[in-house]
Amino acid sequence: MELAPWREPLARALHRNRSLAYCRYFQLATIRSDGHPANRTVVYRGFMDQTNQLKMITDSRSQKVQQITKNQSAEACWYFPKTREQFRLFGQLTLITATSSDRILSSERQQVWQDLSDNARSQFFWPSPGQSRVDASEFTPPEVFPVEPPAEFCLLLLEPEHIDHLELRGEPQNRYLYWREANNNWLTQAVNP
Amino acid sequence: MELAPWREPLARALHRNRSLAYCRYFQLATIRSDGHPANRTVVYRGFMDQTNQLKMITDSRSQKVQQITKNQSAEACWYFPKTREQFRLFGQLTLITATSSDRILSSERQQVWQDLSDNARSQFFWPSPGQSRVDASEFTPPEVFPVEPPAEFCLLLLEPEHIDHLELRGEPQNRYLYWREANNNWLTQAVNP
Repeated sequence: MELAPWREPLARALHRNRSLAYCRYFQLATIRSDGHPANRTVVYRGFMDQTNQLKMITDSRSQKVQQITKNQSAEACWYFPKTREQFRLFGQLTLITATSSDRILSSERQQVWQDLSDNARSQFFWPSPGQSRVDASEFTPPEVFPVEPPAEFCLLLLEPEHIDHLELRGEPQNRYLYWREANNNWLTQAVNP
Repeated sequence: MELAPWREPLARALHRNRSLAYCRYFQLATIRSDGHPANRTVVYRGFMDQTNQLKMITDSRSQKVQQITKNQSAEACWYFPKTREQFRLFGQLTLITATSSDRILSSERQQVWQDLSDNARSQFFWPSPGQSRVDASEFTPPEVFPVEPPAEFCLLLLEPEHIDHLELRGEPQNRYLYWREANNNWLTQAVNP
């Protein structure tokens, strides 16, 4: 598979902003079951090999999992503070749960779990998110983390179809649109900011 | 009017992150006319006096203006890197254009224009955003900026109804929900992160 043309500017932005740990955070907009928008910060976990799909993780008990089941559309908004540029990535989400029957995706879910820090893993053993706050003692992580991810652990993939890249530092500014055609070719266009 | 209870933690976050210019940027999710989500970075321009409405500005030629006309719902996601906390602010948008008949809102639109930097003002004199890129010479700003905002300049207000505040630094983490009731009272609840 060929990398999409927006992969190179995105990789460059990640590299140039690497001194900021939070340059790996972006905001993911989805649609609630009532049709209203939802928006939250998620952590970029790299790309799936041989694809243009961005990896994230989520908890099956979180609201976004319910939202995604009903509506797979999402737009990620990724702002890079050091280079002052923004990528908007619109596309479709795929959720990979413990019951996924796809061998490659299940194996990727397992790998992402194994690569996580213990701190990130702990959250999947916490009491239900969004429920009335329980005592701090109930947040104690397991002494040893299992090799197999818990049922709550989900891999989430975003397959971008349309990208809008804005560079605020240009003179005046630069903006590029990228579209995926039906034949999987990508088109690129320079537009006014 | 009483300030909503989430105003104090938000003001504190803004203060503690003030060394980062981009702590005044947040991501605004809206719904496209086809029902899909849209998400982009906007600049916080303060609160309307005597209200809990956040001020932003936008260009009448931008896609979000068309989106807002059809669907006023929005969720802002505001991440503060230094204090590692996130505010999600869900609510309704109000667009104040050149033809607004509300005296207070029209006057606020004018005031926000007058408080803008020349750099920010320039953008409203640029060729249409999102159209095929035109020559750099067409981006020349006016020699003197008019006192009256151009027709393209819009004030945008977000009136939050529901707030989700997450502090990643807590032990384990802290999360608070705030809701506005029908009688305009606010409820606060501590929930699991």
